[in-house]
Amino acid sequence: MKIEILDTTLRDGAQGAGVAFTEADRFRVIHALDDLGVSYIEAGNFALGSNDWDIFHRAEDLGKTLKNARLVAFGSTRRAGERASSDPALAAIAQSAMPVIAVFGKSWVYQIEKVLNTTKEENLAMIADTVQFLKAAGKEVIFDAEHFFDGYSDDPLYALQVLRTAHEAGADTLVLCDTNGGMLPDIIGMTVSAVREHLPEARLAIHCHNDMGMAVACSLSAVLAGAVQVQGTISGIGERCGNANLCTLIPLLQLKMGFSCISEEQLTALTPVARSITEIANLDFNERSPFVGAYAFTHKAGMHIDAVRKRPRTFEHIDPERVGNSRNLLISALSGRAALQEKMRDILPTLTKESPQVADVLARVKEAEGRGYQYEDAEASLMLLIYAGLGLRRPFFAVKTFKVMIGEPYSREHGTDGGGSTCSALIKIAVDGAEEITAAEGCGPVNALDLALRKALGRFFPCIDRVRLTDYKVRVSGSDSATASVVRVFIESTDGNRVWRTVGVSADIIDASWQALLDSMEFYLHEQQI
Amino acid sequence: MKIEILDTTLRDGAQGAGVAFTEADRFRVIHALDDLGVSYIEAGNFALGSNDWDIFHRAEDLGKTLKNARLVAFGSTRRAGERASSDPALAAIAQSAMPVIAVFGKSWVYQIEKVLNTTKEENLAMIADTVQFLKAAGKEVIFDAEHFFDGYSDDPLYALQVLRTAHEAGADTLVLCDTNGGMLPDIIGMTVSAVREHLPEARLAIHCHNDMGMAVACSLSAVLAGAVQVQGTISGIGERCGNANLCTLIPLLQLKMGFSCISEEQLTALTPVARSITEIANLDFNERSPFVGAYAFTHKAGMHIDAVRKRPRTFEHIDPERVGNSRNLLISALSGRAALQEKMRDILPTLTKESPQVADVLARVKEAEGRGYQYEDAEASLMLLIYAGLGLRRPFFAVKTFKVMIGEPYSREHGTDGGGSTCSALIKIAVDGAEEITAAEGCGPVNALDLALRKALGRFFPCIDRVRLTDYKVRVSGSDSATASVVRVFIESTDGNRVWRTVGVSADIIDASWQALLDSMEFYLHEQQI
Repeated sequence: MKIEILDTTLRDGAQGAGVAFTEADRFRVIHALDDLGVSYIEAGNFALGSNDWDIFHRAEDLGKTLKNARLVAFGSTRRAGERASSDPALAAIAQSAMPVIAVFGKSWVYQIEKVLNTTKEENLAMIADTVQFLKAAGKEVIFDAEHFFDGYSDDPLYALQVLRTAHEAGADTLVLCDTNGGMLPDIIGMTVSAVREHLPEARLAIHCHNDMGMAVACSLSAVLAGAVQVQGTISGIGERCGNANLCTLIPLLQLKMGFSCISEEQLTALTPVARSITEIANLDFNERSPFVGAYAFTHKAGMHIDAVRKRPRTFEHIDPERVGNSRNLLISALSGRAALQEKMRDILPTLTKESPQVADVLARVKEAEGRGYQYEDAEASLMLLIYAGLGLRRPFFAVKTFKVMIGEPYSREHGTDGGGSTCSALIKIAVDGAEEITAAEGCGPVNALDLALRKALGRFFPCIDRVRLTDYKVRVSGSDSATASVVRVFIESTDGNRVWRTVGVSADIIDASWQALLDSMEFYLHEQQI
Repeated sequence: MKIEILDTTLRDGAQGAGVAFTEADRFRVIHALDDLGVSYIEAGNFALGSNDWDIFHRAEDLGKTLKNARLVAFGSTRRAGERASSDPALAAIAQSAMPVIAVFGKSWVYQIEKVLNTTKEENLAMIADTVQFLKAAGKEVIFDAEHFFDGYSDDPLYALQVLRTAHEAGADTLVLCDTNGGMLPDIIGMTVSAVREHLPEARLAIHCHNDMGMAVACSLSAVLAGAVQVQGTISGIGERCGNANLCTLIPLLQLKMGFSCISEEQLTALTPVARSITEIANLDFNERSPFVGAYAFTHKAGMHIDAVRKRPRTFEHIDPERVGNSRNLLISALSGRAALQEKMRDILPTLTKESPQVADVLARVKEAEGRGYQYEDAEASLMLLIYAGLGLRRPFFAVKTFKVMIGEPYSREHGTDGGGSTCSALIKIAVDGAEEITAAEGCGPVNALDLALRKALGRFFPCIDRVRLTDYKVRVSGSDSATASVVRVFIESTDGNRVWRTVGVSADIIDASWQALLDSMEFYLHEQQI
């Protein structure tokens, strides 16, 4: 059975703390969601003055490029005491090329009387009038019953009357919203069943918030009780604790409960799409996310690694490839020899668990972890440790000198932003006895060092010209002494084909960055020459 | 009805990627959990060679200092073909002062035969022998039935036989584990009911993993079906997607379902305890966490802020104080005038929504957001914008010069760690026409700049001596060009009494840090002098 997915990352998700989408972002998100195969994309709010009109104005052209999804504009019913036809936002969206309009109305008497300051009767009139107006304009209409479950708890007859009003006015879908996220799955399931009995011919949708960590469980309950559309966001982005997380919901519905939302092939794009949209939203991706997180199929404890290598089912509830993810065995003091040996055997197939080199590398890993290193996201730095333990690490280059100078034009008046610093780095390296001294200017000390290092190395190793940094992450730990605490820097590099990650640790962010940069270059030289 | 909480942050949580506890950490976590009021603290693994023995050896003294919790040591049943009494780890833990021992055994025939390579009969003997041995040593025994739900699905009779064996051998509690996190809440509930029917006199516990985002929902299902103990970790820390999150489970059970886990007063410590233990575990705290996250009761959309100010119930499912959290209204372009006006009226009570100063500050906020600033976690920087908009911002000081120099001893051979950089900063500031030039050395450029700035300002403003930085966070956004992308730095400062946060944005991490540092000092001077 098909369950429709409505993604509201660009609308409800944009209300999340720290989330902001530019116009270009919004177009990228729409195309990524369409490729993923969702049925509806709620693209923004049609209130006048909203930035989302840049999409609504271009809906006709944009719609033609979409393969799977219909675009939805979201907004309010008309105001109390007025008419829908004279509401400027409703009039404008009715005239736009947006094919689907979602309007939200109140279904909780408490909110109607205490916040909206109107009457129950006028509230029904506002809903009926607005839905009829949009239907007359030829739109598909989704009616969002805000606070539906709170409303149903307090006054079930009125809450049902709200739904009936929207339904009889022609709304195509009725959305039951747990607006403040306070409902338990059982209540959601029983309430959806009651609505189904009351309005058996209506198409019901569910829209849950995660204030109790229950948004996904509540959505599942609603589907089992008869809802045919699920609303949510990528990574559960949204106000407060966020919305129902579609990256959890879609695989659950499809792989665990036998419903169909998107194709099997589209499902294998879930992990990259989740990562990409979360990044566009300017949020850290939660690597512990079910199904799509880097740690979702990552094993650390030695015994677990041993079992999962023998029989994946023991610690993997699905095949990671089905959602575009993959298995990862972490190297840490906890993971023990088996996992390390597996990595080392890629280089030296004759190694066994008992080889002294395995113990040697494990000791190096433990020692470095004690000083704050983590190799779990820095496999290239780990490989350099392994090369060293196997006696295969080659001294491609030595750094003889480096200096960084930062200065004017910082002499701005405080309170107005200047143009950033002027930063320059000077580097001298030696390769097989030959020395090279050079310098570079950059946007900040790390950028200047990166440019100078690649410039110096490039003279000896032309392949370095292909390398560029693609990500730079800073983690400060032990925050008691703030700027003097331990800094861990992760760098991601690419040569256009493959990607590798390195780590550096120091009390000094420049030193930590420098270590990660050196590791990145050295790893690449090993890869090219071994 | 009382539901016991068993916290396994120090044992199962320690298997999470990136998690590491030192000996001192473990003692801090144990005392924090005991204060919170949990019933059991699983403190570590009793395998020989485990670092957790530092706790087990001191169990007698430690136990006397605990007010609420009993300490649990976790480990394996004896090996196949041997005897429990001759197992050195079991013998050692039996002789220790640890009052409660949790042993895990297999309940899934697939794992017994394919991974453990033993027989169903020997597996039962291992369980019975181990439990009897520990009971004879006077211990409270918890039996963890690993993979219980997978085992029950494949071969329910054998899975029940495993439980009965442990029960009849004297185990005080039987733990049903969804080890790989692949079960849905309905299955969990039905299975727990079946076990209850089979072993009505046994005390049942539930232990869930979050691979489908269902660990909390599954735990609730088990409690409703008769489990009397719930196992989980703070912030859901744990391998892969983590364990059931106690910071969600405890308030849900207590505030939403009427069970009793800890006292009402202890519950108000939940937010600080969650934050503290997550930090000790060396993980970023997820501010979007239900109940305890900074965003859990944070409102951003203008209409929501308006409603929650009138009637909190509309967008808050519980009173945040009950879990030690608080409401927060975010200032952003989305949040609009009402929230901004509320903050501005703290300074100038005559302001209204229509005052031109409100529009002026809102325009400044929008403009800065367009350049990458975020004031949601940087209220002190926002206050400086507000002072500027109200014409109240005072030019306490001007920066005339600054230079930072970074150099040797970086000339280490690459691949061995040096002692970090030597970094020095030179600063000249002017206050009312008087100039001060000074310099400082620091651990990295930001630390050096911080020390030099406070040294220079201290001559004019002695109160600056009380200020110190307590946190420093770096966020890199738009990672396409890596070290040349936009960097957002948040700084948290304190004078020992109050705490404030500032933000700086630049392509250059030093420039961004410098802006946040300047804002921090300037804000404090305003606070002291206005």
